[in-house]
Amino acid sequence: MSHMYFQLDVLTNFCHDAFQKFGFSRQESEIITDVLITSDMYGIESHGMQRLSRYHKGIQKGLIHVDAKPEIVFETPVSAVIDGHDGMGQLIGYFAMQTAISKARKAGMAIVSVRNSNHYGIAGYYAKMAANEGLIGFSCTNSEAIMVPTNARKAMLGSNPIAVAMPAEPYMFFFDASTTVVTRGKLEMYRKAEHELPAGWAVDHTGHATGNAELVLENIVSRAGGGILPLGGSEEKSGSHKGYGYGMLCELFSSIFSMGLTSNHTNTPEKGGTCHGFMVIDPACFGDSQAIIDHLSTFLQELREAPKAKGRDRIYTHGEKEALAIERVKVEGVPVDVKTVLEMKDMSTYLGMDFESYFGELDLSGVHEQKNLY
Amino acid sequence: MSHMYFQLDVLTNFCHDAFQKFGFSRQESEIITDVLITSDMYGIESHGMQRLSRYHKGIQKGLIHVDAKPEIVFETPVSAVIDGHDGMGQLIGYFAMQTAISKARKAGMAIVSVRNSNHYGIAGYYAKMAANEGLIGFSCTNSEAIMVPTNARKAMLGSNPIAVAMPAEPYMFFFDASTTVVTRGKLEMYRKAEHELPAGWAVDHTGHATGNAELVLENIVSRAGGGILPLGGSEEKSGSHKGYGYGMLCELFSSIFSMGLTSNHTNTPEKGGTCHGFMVIDPACFGDSQAIIDHLSTFLQELREAPKAKGRDRIYTHGEKEALAIERVKVEGVPVDVKTVLEMKDMSTYLGMDFESYFGELDLSGVHEQKNLY
Repeated sequence: MSHMYFQLDVLTNFCHDAFQKFGFSRQESEIITDVLITSDMYGIESHGMQRLSRYHKGIQKGLIHVDAKPEIVFETPVSAVIDGHDGMGQLIGYFAMQTAISKARKAGMAIVSVRNSNHYGIAGYYAKMAANEGLIGFSCTNSEAIMVPTNARKAMLGSNPIAVAMPAEPYMFFFDASTTVVTRGKLEMYRKAEHELPAGWAVDHTGHATGNAELVLENIVSRAGGGILPLGGSEEKSGSHKGYGYGMLCELFSSIFSMGLTSNHTNTPEKGGTCHGFMVIDPACFGDSQAIIDHLSTFLQELREAPKAKGRDRIYTHGEKEALAIERVKVEGVPVDVKTVLEMKDMSTYLGMDFESYFGELDLSGVHEQKNLY
Repeated sequence: MSHMYFQLDVLTNFCHDAFQKFGFSRQESEIITDVLITSDMYGIESHGMQRLSRYHKGIQKGLIHVDAKPEIVFETPVSAVIDGHDGMGQLIGYFAMQTAISKARKAGMAIVSVRNSNHYGIAGYYAKMAANEGLIGFSCTNSEAIMVPTNARKAMLGSNPIAVAMPAEPYMFFFDASTTVVTRGKLEMYRKAEHELPAGWAVDHTGHATGNAELVLENIVSRAGGGILPLGGSEEKSGSHKGYGYGMLCELFSSIFSMGLTSNHTNTPEKGGTCHGFMVIDPACFGDSQAIIDHLSTFLQELREAPKAKGRDRIYTHGEKEALAIERVKVEGVPVDVKTVLEMKDMSTYLGMDFESYFGELDLSGVHEQKNLY
C-alpha cells in the first residue's frame, strides 16, 4: 500500500470546495470536512479521505439527499427522535449530538435516536463533541449489514461502532471501536494492499473462515452471504456472542429506539436508512465534575504506568494513540493511499474542480510504503 | 466435574435460612437468594450456589457488613450516587436499581452509581428488574482486578460485566457478559474440573499465555501478576483493546462516577470496595413504547430465522438460552457441582444448620457428568 502525505489545510480546502460543489452550504461543508479530517488526524485512515468516494457515489445515486434537513419528530426534556430525511450523515449526526448536549446541559443527561440517515463517519467524532464541552459523550450507529451473528452465515448487523469520550488529563478518554473484530474500511485497506486477512476476521457465504478480503467485500455488496465476525470471533468460547451482543446494544440506541431500519434492512439500492444513537451525561449529575474527571485521569495514569508484558514496552489508554497521531500528522502530514488519491481526482473531475490547483503535480517519488496495516 | 441436581425450592429454602443465620432480615435474605437462584436458573452456574462460599468468607472476614444499609449521598432527578457502606452487594444493587427505576419513571431515564459495595452476583439480575417493569435496564460492576489490559502483565480491571435487558416477545432481550473473554467463575469451574484452559483466555505473571487455571487463580489471589485477557484476546489485531475499552466503560459508570475504588484498588484484605453502575430508560422517551418493543421483537425473530452457518443448526438471540435454561431447570432441577455441595455443607456446619434436613442423605449414585463446560 503506497501512501502520499498531504498537509491538513490542503485536504481541508479541497473538501470544503468539493462539498460545496455537491450543493452543501459553506457551513455544512465545514462540518462534513471536520468529521473526515478528524478521522485522518486520529490515524483512522479507513474513515477519512478513503470514504470520499462512498459519499460521492451516495450523492450521485440519490441515496444522500443534499438538501435534506434533520427534523425532531418526538422529544422529551431528556430525549429526542430525529428523522434525518435521508440527508448527509455527518450533518444529521452533528445536529443530533448538539440536541443531546443542549438537553443534557439542562436535564443532566439525554439520549437522541436517529433514523433515515446515512454513513456519518467516525462515531467518536460526536462523542468527542460532548467531551470538548466537559461532558461525557456516547455515539453509536448501525450500518449496512456486515456482521455475521454467532452460528449464522448471513450478515445481519452492521459493524455497529460504539464510541465513548470523557474529559481527562493530559488527554481525554476516547474509545471508538466497531463491535465487529474489524471494520469494513479495514477490509477495504487489505483489499487495496492485496493482503490476506488475519484468521478470525471473516467468513464466506457458507459461514466458513476465509482470508480473502475481495471475496468477503464482494459477497457483502451482492448480499451473497458471509461477512465480518463479531468481536470475539466465531465461537462462544472466544466470546463471539459478546461482540454480537454489543452490536445489538448499538441497534437498540439507533434503529430500535428511533423505529428506524435495523442494519439488515438498510442500504438497499433505493435507500441508505442508517440509524444513530447519541447519549450525553453531565458529570455534575454525580457531584463535583472536576473531582470526577481527576479521578479518571488518575486511573488512566495508573494504567499507563502498570507493569508491561514481556516484550511490550507501552500500555496505551484509549485516546492516547489519537493524541499521538495528531502530533505525527502535524509533522508528517496526512497519509493518503494512492488509490484513494486517484478516487479524489476522479471526484474532482466529476465536480469540475481543478485538482492540481489544490495538490500540484503529484510527485510519485514521494510515495512511502506503509509498514504496519494496523 | 460431577453434578447433583436439586429442586429450586430446596435450594431457596436453604439459602433463606442460611442468610438469616448470617444476620440478614427475612426480606434481605429473600433478595440475596433470588439473585443467586436466578443465576442458577439461567444456567450461569458460576454465579449461583458456587458463590455461596465467597459470601460466607466475605462475611466471616468482616469485608461484608451484614448490618450496613445503602445510603444516597448525592442525587438529582435523573441520577444518584449511593454509598454501600461495605454491605452485601445484592442488597445494595437491589436498592440502587430500585432508585434508578423510580427516577426513570418520573424523568424518563436515570443513572445510579454505587461505591463501597461488594460482589453483587450476576449483573443481569438488576437489568432484568427494569425490563420486568417494561423499562430498559443496564447494570455493570467493577470487581477484583482480574483483566490484564492490552500489553500489560498485571491485572488492572475487573471482569467488569455489562448487562442490558429490554422487554421483547416471546422472551426479553437479555445480555449479560463480562468484558473479559471469560469470568473468574469460569476459571474456577475449570480448576474444579481439572481441565486445561482454552487458548486466548489467560496470561501468567510475565504476560505470557497459559492454560493453567490453578496458576492464574493463585496469581490473582496473591497479586503476583497475570490474569484473564480482555474480550478480543492479547492482540489489537483480534480486538484486545476493545474488550479493554468496554471494561473501561464499566469503570466510568461504577467507580469513576461514584468516586469509588477502581478495580485495581478493590478487594484488599481489609476492604471489598466494589462499585456498580445502573441505568434505566423508559422506552416512552422515544414515542410509543409498545411499538418500540414490537420493533425489537421483530428484529430478534429475523435474527433467529437467519440462514445458519454450515454445521450450525440454531442462531440464538440474547436471553433465549436463559429462557431455555429455566424450562430445563424446572424439569431436571438445578445442577450443582459436588465440590460446591461440600462448600454448602461446610457453611451450614459453620452456621449450626442441619444440612440433611434440607437435602436428605446425599445419594452419590445420582451424580451426572457435565458434558460441556461452556
